[in-house]
Amino acid sequence: MSKKIVLREKLSAKNEAVAAELGVAFRQLGLFVVDLIGSPGAGKTRLLEAMAPRLRGHAAVIEGDIQTDRDTRRIEKAGLPACQINTQGACHLDAAMVRDAAATLTLDGLRYLFIENVGNLVCPAGFALGEHMKVAVVSVTEGDDKPAKYPAAIRRSAAMVLTKTDLLPHVDCDVARMEREAKEINPELAVFQVSAGTGAGIGPWMDWLDAMAARS
Amino acid sequence: MSKKIVLREKLSAKNEAVAAELGVAFRQLGLFVVDLIGSPGAGKTRLLEAMAPRLRGHAAVIEGDIQTDRDTRRIEKAGLPACQINTQGACHLDAAMVRDAAATLTLDGLRYLFIENVGNLVCPAGFALGEHMKVAVVSVTEGDDKPAKYPAAIRRSAAMVLTKTDLLPHVDCDVARMEREAKEINPELAVFQVSAGTGAGIGPWMDWLDAMAARS
Repeated sequence: MSKKIVLREKLSAKNEAVAAELGVAFRQLGLFVVDLIGSPGAGKTRLLEAMAPRLRGHAAVIEGDIQTDRDTRRIEKAGLPACQINTQGACHLDAAMVRDAAATLTLDGLRYLFIENVGNLVCPAGFALGEHMKVAVVSVTEGDDKPAKYPAAIRRSAAMVLTKTDLLPHVDCDVARMEREAKEINPELAVFQVSAGTGAGIGPWMDWLDAMAARS
Repeated sequence: MSKKIVLREKLSAKNEAVAAELGVAFRQLGLFVVDLIGSPGAGKTRLLEAMAPRLRGHAAVIEGDIQTDRDTRRIEKAGLPACQINTQGACHLDAAMVRDAAATLTLDGLRYLFIENVGNLVCPAGFALGEHMKVAVVSVTEGDDKPAKYPAAIRRSAAMVLTKTDLLPHVDCDVARMEREAKEINPELAVFQVSAGTGAGIGPWMDWLDAMAARS
């Protein structure tokens, strides 16, 4: 095995260990933890803003970005406690970053912790953060070939949320194909269509999340 | 220094060496080489399709994707020779992959080689491929905060091509802010607005490319 692969496996094993500890801590707090992964501009922050009215008093958010605290300010404005991780170039969050960020939030009594990962449909799929589930956020403006082209994100997610459906009349995107190809990769995948702008689909997606949290 | 950083620097030095050799070979062939980087669904392939009528007989394309050869088939259908790199999970192309792919193409007599990197606005920015320039492709549907949030891609690019401008009436995107914040990161950056769908802006962008190639 090459040195590169040996080191990558060691780092991965270390992350898995931290994530496992973190997962235990989250469960002890009664938190249901969701890791949102998706491309830059997929609409992850906008989705959380649309969910915020129903989440107020029940959820906190950890925002991951390479730079800027813009998303944290947006989430706080939407009425949810949030804290920012700036990775300073790193392409994904790891469990140690999430542990340190979570320690700065008051989590007692909350039901949900959402982690918005760095905008990247590739690298975040490979890193456990102590979450109950990953959710892939994909906008219809990205095109219907994205599940087939980024299979790891789909394979490791419990749900795929298709965002910006209000733009469907203006873009060339076959949502049925997108869902079909995603389910070929992950037959257990739940798929939701939402528009944060109009609010369409936000209710059913949150009902499903509540059901998953109740079952955990 | 940690083992991780030492190894990363070694791998990076090795990539730089391969990229430098490749750059010499590209120049000997009289090729002007452009590395297109951008998020999944930014419209990189669609941009090349819109450029294809003017590029026929003068350009070839290397397509980088984690999986599928869909983009290569699209480019070939548009009349340009193309070959596919499948990274099988890797989040960016490296110079050795490009060298091996370029060896399968007939490049004699061509003026341009376009390399479409893996859809990822983060990792590809850090890897030289022997190119003359990187170009960041960002769609207006991703939102106007993307240059500030993904500064490395902007800093290392000679141009930023804003795509899908036909969707501007339907999305909340301040293009002037996008350009201003990008130029704060990289004052030399050339910025173009295009719609591959309507063809708007494709001409000026290609005129600029021709001028840069002529100057090289």
